[in-house]
Formats: sequence, C-alpha cells, structure tokens
Amino acid sequence: MIKHFDKQSILEADPSFRRNFVNCLSGYKSLNLIGTKNNAGVSNLSPFSQVFHIGASPPLVGILFRPHTVVRHTLENILETGFFTLNHVTKDFYKEAHQTAANYEGSEFEATGLKEEYLSGFHAPFVEMSPMKIACSYSEHQTLKINGTVLIIGAIEHVFVKEEGIKADGFLDLDFLGTVTVSGLDEYHLGKKLSRLSYPKPGKGLTEI
Amino acid sequence: MIKHFDKQSILEADPSFRRNFVNCLSGYKSLNLIGTKNNAGVSNLSPFSQVFHIGASPPLVGILFRPHTVVRHTLENILETGFFTLNHVTKDFYKEAHQTAANYEGSEFEATGLKEEYLSGFHAPFVEMSPMKIACSYSEHQTLKINGTVLIIGAIEHVFVKEEGIKADGFLDLDFLGTVTVSGLDEYHLGKKLSRLSYPKPGKGLTEI
Repeated sequence: MIKHFDKQSILEADPSFRRNFVNCLSGYKSLNLIGTKNNAGVSNLSPFSQVFHIGASPPLVGILFRPHTVVRHTLENILETGFFTLNHVTKDFYKEAHQTAANYEGSEFEATGLKEEYLSGFHAPFVEMSPMKIACSYSEHQTLKINGTVLIIGAIEHVFVKEEGIKADGFLDLDFLGTVTVSGLDEYHLGKKLSRLSYPKPGKGLTEI
Repeated sequence: MIKHFDKQSILEADPSFRRNFVNCLSGYKSLNLIGTKNNAGVSNLSPFSQVFHIGASPPLVGILFRPHTVVRHTLENILETGFFTLNHVTKDFYKEAHQTAANYEGSEFEATGLKEEYLSGFHAPFVEMSPMKIACSYSEHQTLKINGTVLIIGAIEHVFVKEEGIKADGFLDLDFLGTVTVSGLDEYHLGKKLSRLSYPKPGKGLTEI
C-alpha cells in the first residue's frame, strides 16, 4: 500500500515526525566524524551525514551545517583554524561515534574514549581507529539564505587509508574497510555489495567489474 | 599497512585514478534516479549520488550537478520546467538505473525499459518500480565558483512511499524498502542494519531503539 504525503501534510506533521521523515528521504548517507581543534588546544569530534563530493580536480569536499544560531564547535573551529579531518566510522565504534553528538562542554574524544591521532604535522586530530582518514583545509563558506544552513567547502590535503582497500584504478572498497553508512538521523548500517558495473554506453550491455 | 596520499600525489595521479579515488572519499552516498520532462514532452532519467538533505522545515533537498559545460538534460529540464522527481533504486533495477547514465539522445525510460509513472498531476515522471518517489519543485540555484558545479535547491512537494516502511515516529526503513546506496562512481550496495540508537546525552548510555 502506497502512502502519499503532500507538502501540506508534511508541514502540518509533528516537528519530530517531520524531522525524522525528511532526513530519510534522500537515502543512505555518508557518515564522517569531523575532528577539529580550536586555538586554545581543545579538540572536538562530531558526526556528520551531509558531507559530499564537490570535485576531483582539484579534490574538494562540501559539508552542510545546521544554521549557526547556537554554539556549533565544529563549524566555529573550522572557521577559526582553517583545518578539519573526516574520519570514516566502523561497526567497532559507531556507538561512540553517535555519542559524540551529545552536548559535551569539553572534548568528545575524552568523553567517549575515542583516541585522538595526529599525522603529518596536521593541526586537526584524526580518530585513530578509523580505516579512512582525510585531512582538509578550509576553502570557502556561505550561508544558504533559503534556510540559514552553512555550506563549507574544503580542499583535501591528505588521505590515510588501509592499502588493501585501494584498487588499481583508484577505487576504494568501502565494504572491505568496514565503513558505516547512516539513514535518517540515527540508524547505522554496513554496506552489502551488489556489484560494481562497467561504464554505461548506449546499446552496450553492462558487465560486472 | 596504511597508505598516505598527500594533495600533490592526488593531483599528479592519472585523472581516471583520481576521479575514482576522490569520489569514494566521503563514504557511501545516496542514490536517486532524477526524473524530468522537458517542455517538448521528452522525458529524461539519470542517476545522481550528490542529492542531500538541506532542511526539514520547510522540506528542502539539494543536488550538486557537474559543471554545465556540456549538455546536461536533467539540469536543463529542471531550469526550464521547474519540476523533477527523486526515485530510490532497488536491487531489482540498479543495473538499468546505472545504464540511464549512458549518453542517450532520447528518453532513458524507453532506452532501459524502466516504466514512467505520473502521479497527482505532477509534471515530471516517476519510476514506477521505485519504493520511494519524491516530487520536487525548483527553488533556487547557484554556480559554485570554486569549480563550476551547480547547486540546485528544491522544495519537496509530494512523497509516495510504501506504508509498511514508515515507522510511527516518521522514520523510513530503507533496508525494508530495499533502497540501494552507491560508493564511488559505480559500485552498488544494499544496507545491512547495525542498529538504530537513542538520542545521545552526556553521561547517559545509548539504547537500541
């Protein structure tokens, strides 16, 4: 049985229902713990599901933050210092990753027991257990006037990844790395591979590669 | 063994390697077939993995398009007509979904055998087989000067979803709906649920909900 929601019914729904509902609509989302450290030396770690690819040449990533109407340590630390890390999450610590979203005064690393790691002299901390660690520098930001969300664009400076997860053509095997994905605000999943498909061309059949 | 790539080595890599590599970095991504129809009545269908949540109140979604330096039917149809659909993909038609990315002159619906569906008088076509169908209207767009990509923001007008996939609190069960996720440019996965976690608070343990 198909249920139909029009815009009016979505707007009239309980705000909590609407928040869960709309956050599920786009599908499975990337999950990254973003690591930062402010100029006073206090580290910060928080989970984000609106991290997305902006470009490959040069390598750029985008993050959409909720409106800056309350204290937002990750956003403020990026604007203050210009540096942040992205860290994939695995099943071994996705609960701690979720917990970092709680409203801690100090460092979420300390609060959750996730271990900070510093690599290649980079300012911002990585999550030691993460199978994919990405260092980024701030490029630019803007506030989307439509709803006050803040889009940060970062340049990719370093990637640290388990070598066995890298294919010859540059593809990274997320199932092998154990990367977790998120649906809605709070449900976590592993990936279960169907197949990898060849480049699509009109009139040509696809092969599994 | 951890492999380290710095920015220079990423930029100096073979372009194809870099494209695969960088497209994997953010993690698993949402996968949506975007349906449009131009004013001449020709329908169009194409897969996108940069569709992301912008807000819940009002409900808004963002899509990032590659630079508009070549013909891009989906983008042009949205700018021309103001309407588009998002359609989740399942394992039953993810190969056809991938194939819609091929460079067809006419409608990808016809070329791949995916059936068009029109609902509630909405201009743009849906994919009949899809378990989650979302109708959107154009709100605004901008070209990101940093690399020429085009950000479209759309307002959610309708959602059509299998009723059994909707939880009481508004959460949508993507594993149940069979929604597919994508990694990189071409690897498709189902989700394999770990758990759904309670709202995180300092000093309070998490429960599975």
